[in-house]
Amino acid sequence: MHVRGIHHLGVAVADLDEAVETWQRLFGAIVEHRDSLESQGVDAVSLRVGDSRIELLMPSGEDTPVGRFLARRGPGVHHVALATDDINGALRDLDAAGAQLIDQIPRRGLYGLEVAFVHPDAVHGVLTEVVSTD
Amino acid sequence: MHVRGIHHLGVAVADLDEAVETWQRLFGAIVEHRDSLESQGVDAVSLRVGDSRIELLMPSGEDTPVGRFLARRGPGVHHVALATDDINGALRDLDAAGAQLIDQIPRRGLYGLEVAFVHPDAVHGVLTEVVSTD
Repeated sequence: MHVRGIHHLGVAVADLDEAVETWQRLFGAIVEHRDSLESQGVDAVSLRVGDSRIELLMPSGEDTPVGRFLARRGPGVHHVALATDDINGALRDLDAAGAQLIDQIPRRGLYGLEVAFVHPDAVHGVLTEVVSTD
Repeated sequence: MHVRGIHHLGVAVADLDEAVETWQRLFGAIVEHRDSLESQGVDAVSLRVGDSRIELLMPSGEDTPVGRFLARRGPGVHHVALATDDINGALRDLDAAGAQLIDQIPRRGLYGLEVAFVHPDAVHGVLTEVVSTD
């Protein structure tokens, strides 16, 4: 698949407002968007940090993917999102290359983006998201 | 501090050659550099993935920072490196902002870069490296 680069880094946090304040204070982060995705059980804030993007994710409950991650590993990097301009082609390529896909077809992610997740076992422990960008 | 953006994402792996092959095959990664840092006990490969950079880190022994990380958490994202054009100013700003620094002064990292680490407790569980770039 053709990757444009890292779209964002997804970071699981226990307190969204505290984490936003930390990233603003230490690294001059600027809030880009806020969103909630009920189907995934997360509240999120997208930050610009220089020309990069950090997505802070707070679970809306314990029995959610990010809630279980927090309980098991504590706060920290949750996933890496790679930008592509052809998400359907990317998923075909990944499938052909033998990568285990969590999402066989793109679904609607935060901020209305089309996304799909690749299983961390396929990427040496890195939960990897593919994000469609124009 | 002024951050230019994410310089690289450091990923701990158990087998460097296998991980390089995976990132090449799935995401079209291109090998940029290979290096070893005896003082840190790591062998590393720097990959370009689109306009971003992934740094794969394999420990040279169990009793090394990355070796202990692997034993405790398994392979996965180890740290996030942020680029700055003034690392000494960045460390002063971080110290003034109350961030716990692992390195009070910059040290020589992989590929001859000047780097310093901020304690993960200061960044909600994210081990953060500051990297000096021109």
